[in-house]
Amino acid sequence: MTTELLYERVADRVADLIARGVLRPGDRVPSVRRLSRQERVSVATVVQAYQQLEVRGLVEARPQSGHYVRARSRAPIAEPRPARPSTTPTKPSTGNLIKKVYGAIRDPRTVDLGAAVPSAELLPTEKLQRILGSMAREVGGVGVSYDPPPGCPALRRQIARRAVDAGCAIPADEIVTTVGAMEALHLALRATTKPGDTIALESPCYYGLLQLVESLGIRALEIPGHPRTGMDLDALEVALDSQRISAVLSIPSFANPLGSRMPDEAKKRMVALLAAREVPLIEDDIYGDVPFPGTAPPGEEDRPKPAKSWDRDGGVILCSSYSKTIAPGYRVGYVAGGRYRDRIEALKFAHTISTPTLPQLAIAEFIEGGGYDHHLRTLRRRLASQVAHMREAIAAFFPEGTRVSAPTGGFVLWVELPGNASSIELHGRALAEGVSIAPGPIFSAKPRFSSYLRISCGLPWSTAIEQALATLGRIACSLAGRPPA
Amino acid sequence: MTTELLYERVADRVADLIARGVLRPGDRVPSVRRLSRQERVSVATVVQAYQQLEVRGLVEARPQSGHYVRARSRAPIAEPRPARPSTTPTKPSTGNLIKKVYGAIRDPRTVDLGAAVPSAELLPTEKLQRILGSMAREVGGVGVSYDPPPGCPALRRQIARRAVDAGCAIPADEIVTTVGAMEALHLALRATTKPGDTIALESPCYYGLLQLVESLGIRALEIPGHPRTGMDLDALEVALDSQRISAVLSIPSFANPLGSRMPDEAKKRMVALLAAREVPLIEDDIYGDVPFPGTAPPGEEDRPKPAKSWDRDGGVILCSSYSKTIAPGYRVGYVAGGRYRDRIEALKFAHTISTPTLPQLAIAEFIEGGGYDHHLRTLRRRLASQVAHMREAIAAFFPEGTRVSAPTGGFVLWVELPGNASSIELHGRALAEGVSIAPGPIFSAKPRFSSYLRISCGLPWSTAIEQALATLGRIACSLAGRPPA
Repeated sequence: MTTELLYERVADRVADLIARGVLRPGDRVPSVRRLSRQERVSVATVVQAYQQLEVRGLVEARPQSGHYVRARSRAPIAEPRPARPSTTPTKPSTGNLIKKVYGAIRDPRTVDLGAAVPSAELLPTEKLQRILGSMAREVGGVGVSYDPPPGCPALRRQIARRAVDAGCAIPADEIVTTVGAMEALHLALRATTKPGDTIALESPCYYGLLQLVESLGIRALEIPGHPRTGMDLDALEVALDSQRISAVLSIPSFANPLGSRMPDEAKKRMVALLAAREVPLIEDDIYGDVPFPGTAPPGEEDRPKPAKSWDRDGGVILCSSYSKTIAPGYRVGYVAGGRYRDRIEALKFAHTISTPTLPQLAIAEFIEGGGYDHHLRTLRRRLASQVAHMREAIAAFFPEGTRVSAPTGGFVLWVELPGNASSIELHGRALAEGVSIAPGPIFSAKPRFSSYLRISCGLPWSTAIEQALATLGRIACSLAGRPPA
Repeated sequence: MTTELLYERVADRVADLIARGVLRPGDRVPSVRRLSRQERVSVATVVQAYQQLEVRGLVEARPQSGHYVRARSRAPIAEPRPARPSTTPTKPSTGNLIKKVYGAIRDPRTVDLGAAVPSAELLPTEKLQRILGSMAREVGGVGVSYDPPPGCPALRRQIARRAVDAGCAIPADEIVTTVGAMEALHLALRATTKPGDTIALESPCYYGLLQLVESLGIRALEIPGHPRTGMDLDALEVALDSQRISAVLSIPSFANPLGSRMPDEAKKRMVALLAAREVPLIEDDIYGDVPFPGTAPPGEEDRPKPAKSWDRDGGVILCSSYSKTIAPGYRVGYVAGGRYRDRIEALKFAHTISTPTLPQLAIAEFIEGGGYDHHLRTLRRRLASQVAHMREAIAAFFPEGTRVSAPTGGFVLWVELPGNASSIELHGRALAEGVSIAPGPIFSAKPRFSSYLRISCGLPWSTAIEQALATLGRIACSLAGRPPA
C-alpha cells in the first residue's frame, strides 16, 4: 500500500465520523499526534490526511489550536442530472450570450464567475515574466523571429517528458505546438472531418467548442455526460452503430462544464470502441494537470492518464495548453496528432504560420527548471479550496433544491436550479448587478440546460466573491420562487 | 511642389544621364555642391537625390571621394511575364515543397532565400525586447491573462491612428487583433465564403494563402497579375460577369511574389467593380508599410493607400500584421472587417480565443513612442538596397535571358528562368548545396510557373549571400543550358 492510499484511508475514517454526526460542526478533531497513534500511521501521513480534509472542505485549521469540523449550512448538496440522450445531430447555433460571457473578462466592474479563467493571482506571473525577460535578452533575434511548425523543440521535449510522467508515451516528433488548445482542437477537427460531417461530443459541452464546430459546418451529436464519470459510453456506442460519426470530441479529465473524471477503465473502453470502428478520438486534456490532491479513484494516480495512453493505432489526437495553469495570455498549446500528425502540421502553417516564439521558450524553461511542478502543487490545493468554498456558498445562498457538481479537478461548477428558474434570466439580472456567470443554454446546440449554469472558481475566495454568490443566490431564489436551503 | 518631388526630379535627371550612357560605370557623378548650383536646388535636396539613386542601385558612395556610377553587368534585366488568364477555377493543391521552404527557416546550415522572412538584424530587436520586459513588469498579471476579442485597446488605437496617416479612416472599434495576418485572412475568408465557393485571387499567389484556401474547400480562380501593376482588372471583370465569385483576395501593395504596386486609380476601380456586384474584397496589406523611398508613382505618397481607402459600404476587409516589419515571432496582426466585423470577432474567439497579450502591448507602446516610424525609415532604405543588390547579382550570375521583377516595396523578387529550366529541380539541387529558394509551382494551383522562382531579399547583403546567388546562378545556367549574361 502506498503512502498516498494510506493517508486517504485515514482521511476517509475522519470523514466518516463527520458524515455520521459523531463529529459535529465546530468540534475539534483528534490531534495529529493522537490520530497517528490510534491509526498506527506516521505523523506525516496524518498531516496529509488533514490537508486533504481541508481540500474537501470538511475541516479547517485554526492557528495554534488544531483542526475543527467546518460549519456546513446543510446536508451535502446533490449532483445535477445528466442530459437525456439525443438521436438527432444538430448544427450548433450560439449567440450574443457568448460574447457577453467573454466580454466580462475585460470589465473591471464585474465579478467574473462566467469565463473559465484562472486568476492572475494563482499564476506564476512574476517568475514567468522574469524568465521571459531574461530569455528575450539571451536569445536576441531568435525571440522576434518565426518559430516554424512543428514549433519550439525545447518545449516539445518538455511536453513529451511530462507525458511520460502522466503514463502516456508521446514522442516529441509527434507534437505540433499551437496558439492555445483552441487552435489544437481546430486543427484536429479540420484534419479529421469535412463540412457536413457529424461528430459526437459530451453534453453539456464548452460553448467555445460548439461555436467552433458550428463555424466549420460540422453537425454535433450530443452524448449525455455524467457529472462524475463523463460521456455515457453506452449512448456513444449506440450512436456509433446507428450513424456515420467522423470523430469523437471529449474532455475525459475534468470536463468543462461538468467537472467529470472518466475512470481509466472507461477511457480504455472508449478508445477501444473507437479504434474498432476507425473513428478518431479528439481528446481535450486542458484540465488534466489540475486534479485535486488525494481525490483519485482507487488504483489511479492523482494526475489522470490521458485516454491517449491506450492509443495503439494513432487514432487519438491529444490537445492541450498552458492556458489554465501557467499563462492564458501567452497563447501556447499543443497537439499530439497520432496518424493525423503530418496533416495537422500542414494545417498549422496555413492557420497561423507559427506559435509565438518567446512565450514557448519561457514556458519550456519554466517546466525544465522544475518551476511548473512546484507551481502545480500549490495551484491544485488552491483550486480545490476555491471550489470547496464556492460549493458551500452555493449551498448557503442558492434556493432549496439546487444541485451542484462535485468535481475533483479543474475549476468550474455545473449548477442546476430548481423550479424551472431561467439561467439566461439569472445571467442578465446578475450582470446588471455586476456579476457574470455562464448560462446553461450556451453549453448545448439544442434548447437545453435552461435552468443550469456554470460558475467558474478561478478567482481566489474573498468577501467580494462571497457577496457575488449572495447576489446570485438572491436572484436565483426569486426566479425559482423558493427560499435558500 | 514638395521637397520630395524635387529630389526625385533631380534623381531622375541623373538616372537619365546614366541610361543614355553620358555617365558610364565607374564615372564620378557631379559633386553635391555642383549639382546643387546647376539644378538650383538646396544641397539637402541633392543629398536626398543621391540617396535615392543609391537605393535604386545606380550610384554608389565611395568614402572621401564622392558618388560613382555603379558597374552593371549588362543592360537592365527584363520583367518576368504575367500568367495567362484562366477561366476554370481549381481547388489548389500544394505539397511537401512548402514544408521544405518553411523548414529551411530553422536550418542554420542553409542560406534561406526561400521564406519571405525579414532577418532579425533588420528588426528593432533590442528596443522591442526592452519594451516587452518593462511592459511585463509594469502590467503584472495582465500580461499573463487573456486579452479577449476584439483585442488590446491600446494597439487598436495605434492601428486606427496610423491608418488615418495612410489616408484610410478606420475606427478602432472596427478592428479585431489576430495571430498574424494569416489568421486575419483566415477569418476574412471564413466570414465571406463557405466550402465549395469560388474566390478570385492574383496569380502567382503566396503559397500559404493557396494552402489556406485549399484547406477550406474553397476553389481559387487565378487572375493574372502584372509584375508592376498587380491584378489584371479586365480579366477580373470578365470573371465576375461570367461566374459566381464569393470574394476577391488581393495584395494590392507589393504583392507576394510579384512585388507589384497597384496604382491608386486601379485600386479605386477594383473597389467600385466589386461594390457594384456586392462582392467583398479581402485586402492583404502586409507589405504596405515598406515602400522604397522615393519610388511612388506621380501624385501618390510613398506609403501606398490601402484599397480600403475607397471603401464606401464596408465591403473591403483589410488584413495586415507586424510580421514583416517588427517581429514575426510576436504573432500580432489585425483585421478591419467592414460589414463583416461582428462575424469576424465571433470567429476569432472560436479560432484562438485571443491574441498574445504582452506582444500586443509591446507593439502598441513601440508605435506610440514613435519607434515604429523611426524604424521604418531605416528599414525601407535597407530593404531597397538589399533588393537592388540581389537584382544585380541575379543579372550577373543567372543565365542569359533570365527575367526579374523590379519591385518598389516589400522584399521579394520574382524570377523567370530561360530555356524551360525547372525551378523545382533548381530548388532541390540548391538545397543540397545549402541554399533555399521558393520554386514557382507552389505559387499556383495549376501546373504553372515551372521556370519561375521567388527569391527573398530579407537577409542583409553579404558575401555569403553573394556566394549563394552564385551557386543558384551556376545551377540555373546548367539547367537552362546557357551561360550567364
